[in-house]
Amino acid sequence: MTPTPQTLTAERILEATEEVLRRHGPAKATVVDVARALGVSHGSVYRHFRTKAALREAVTKRWLDRTSDSLSGIVAEDRDPEARLRAWFSALFAAKRRKAGDDPELFATYMVLTEENGEAVGEHIAELISQLRRIVRAGVDAGTFTADDPSATARALFHASRRFHDPRYAVEWEQPGTEADFDAVVDLLLRGLRA
Amino acid sequence: MTPTPQTLTAERILEATEEVLRRHGPAKATVVDVARALGVSHGSVYRHFRTKAALREAVTKRWLDRTSDSLSGIVAEDRDPEARLRAWFSALFAAKRRKAGDDPELFATYMVLTEENGEAVGEHIAELISQLRRIVRAGVDAGTFTADDPSATARALFHASRRFHDPRYAVEWEQPGTEADFDAVVDLLLRGLRA
Repeated sequence: MTPTPQTLTAERILEATEEVLRRHGPAKATVVDVARALGVSHGSVYRHFRTKAALREAVTKRWLDRTSDSLSGIVAEDRDPEARLRAWFSALFAAKRRKAGDDPELFATYMVLTEENGEAVGEHIAELISQLRRIVRAGVDAGTFTADDPSATARALFHASRRFHDPRYAVEWEQPGTEADFDAVVDLLLRGLRA
Repeated sequence: MTPTPQTLTAERILEATEEVLRRHGPAKATVVDVARALGVSHGSVYRHFRTKAALREAVTKRWLDRTSDSLSGIVAEDRDPEARLRAWFSALFAAKRRKAGDDPELFATYMVLTEENGEAVGEHIAELISQLRRIVRAGVDAGTFTADDPSATARALFHASRRFHDPRYAVEWEQPGTEADFDAVVDLLLRGLRA
């Protein structure tokens, strides 16, 4: 009954950690639970993540990165910046709604983890704003957007759309009229950007 | 030692209720505390507010109305709609920051009360959006704003500025850069409105 030997990677530990968090909740999940789920000693887990806090931070970062990674493809697309920006906002809102709606327990768990890991959240927001800045710059270069300070404009776009991606509003995302409100905000912002 | 007789009005009860809430916190404040603070029987209080819940709702509404009442003067001003809208956003943000910063205990108390009184909050938001709609319409009438659907635009202006008036963000309002972020959002929104 020797288990198939498989290299214990950080990624495998993070996958198992997410599953343990989903099952036990953020208050009860321990490193021992993660080790048990992987069939390894807790020492093997600690060789990759030196503390429980480091493991929790890494799994939070991985969860946040999944969203920003999925958006980076839109930023890199070779089509007109206005369409790219619209697609980016829609994809961000859709990704957040999916996370909140498809697996509410896991979402609630990550809400606790993001409270604990302000630095990971800060880096995630900085990455999203940096993606917005790249699209704004592309629009300015193409002559279709006006923005004296693309960094400030990117921050403004981020803040003005928070109602539609900040998890604090998750319970309101499925209310009637939300889709129309989202469209009205994006339309107004795009009008504001136009050269 | 007969106290000066003074008519027991709803307004006097609400003032006393706010003071009792500030002192005891929302979990402990009772109608008996309010009656004691006024030197009347709790029956006299119940003649104005039939339940403790009704009293708590009325005091929440009064607190919210203080903000919207202070903004209604700006809506009625006879100056150009763009300046009016800018002044309205600034006054709203300033009023909320004052409420959160000047009396944190009372603010925390009202955060609990607004959670309980979703209907009062809904009416407050509807009133703010209605004020925005009046300014948007004035701009369309003056030919300085473009808005196909002033109601939808008013909702968009409300949602796009939530970072700067939704109490959920109160702890972030005093962070460095907030003022610049606020200006960038308002500038972008006003550009989006221009005819």
